[in-house]
Amino acid sequence: MYIVIFRARIRRLDPEYSTTAQRMRELAFSQYGCIEFHSVTEGLNEISLSYWPNEENIRAWKSHPEHILAQRTGRDRWYESYSVQIAEISREYQVNTAG
Amino acid sequence: MYIVIFRARIRRLDPEYSTTAQRMRELAFSQYGCIEFHSVTEGLNEISLSYWPNEENIRAWKSHPEHILAQRTGRDRWYESYSVQIAEISREYQVNTAG
Repeated sequence: MYIVIFRARIRRLDPEYSTTAQRMRELAFSQYGCIEFHSVTEGLNEISLSYWPNEENIRAWKSHPEHILAQRTGRDRWYESYSVQIAEISREYQVNTAG
Repeated sequence: MYIVIFRARIRRLDPEYSTTAQRMRELAFSQYGCIEFHSVTEGLNEISLSYWPNEENIRAWKSHPEHILAQRTGRDRWYESYSVQIAEISREYQVNTAG
C-alpha cells in the first residue's frame, strides 16, 4: 500500500477550500481507488494522509483536470508552502486500548 | 529515507504527556538519528510524522527502555487507539508559493 503525505503551511482558507477539498476527496475515492484519507489541522499546520493501492493511481489522480485546478488554487491562495511525499508502507500495527 | 506515521485517537492528555513527548523527541534526535519530526493535533485526532535514515534506527528507537515505558503509558492513559506505519519515501517535492 502507498501513502501520500501532504504537509502544508496554510496561508488563508476560504469557503471554496472546503468545497474543493470535499470534491477532491470524493473523486479520489470514487475514481482513483483511494483507500483511506485523514486530515488534521492545528493552527496554520495541516497534515493530510491518503492511502492508495499503487503509484499509478496516485499519478492518475494527480493529473485529473479538476485536481490540477485545485493544486493551482492551493498554490495561489490557500497555502504558503507545502510538501508532498510518496512512500510505500512496509510494516504497520494497530493498538486498541482497553476501557 | 523512512517515515514513521503515527495516527492516534486521544483519550486524555495530562502534563506528563508533554514532558514525555518532548523527552522522546530529544532522544530520537540525539541518539537515533531522527531527521525531522512533525506533530499536528485537531480535537482528539493526532498525526505525528518522524523521518529516519533507515529502518534499523527506527527499531532501535522503538526498543529504548524509556520509549517502551512511554508506549505503555500511551496505551494505558493517553490514547484510545493508535496505529503505526513504517514506509520508505520514493518521491517527494516541495512548493513555496510567491508572496
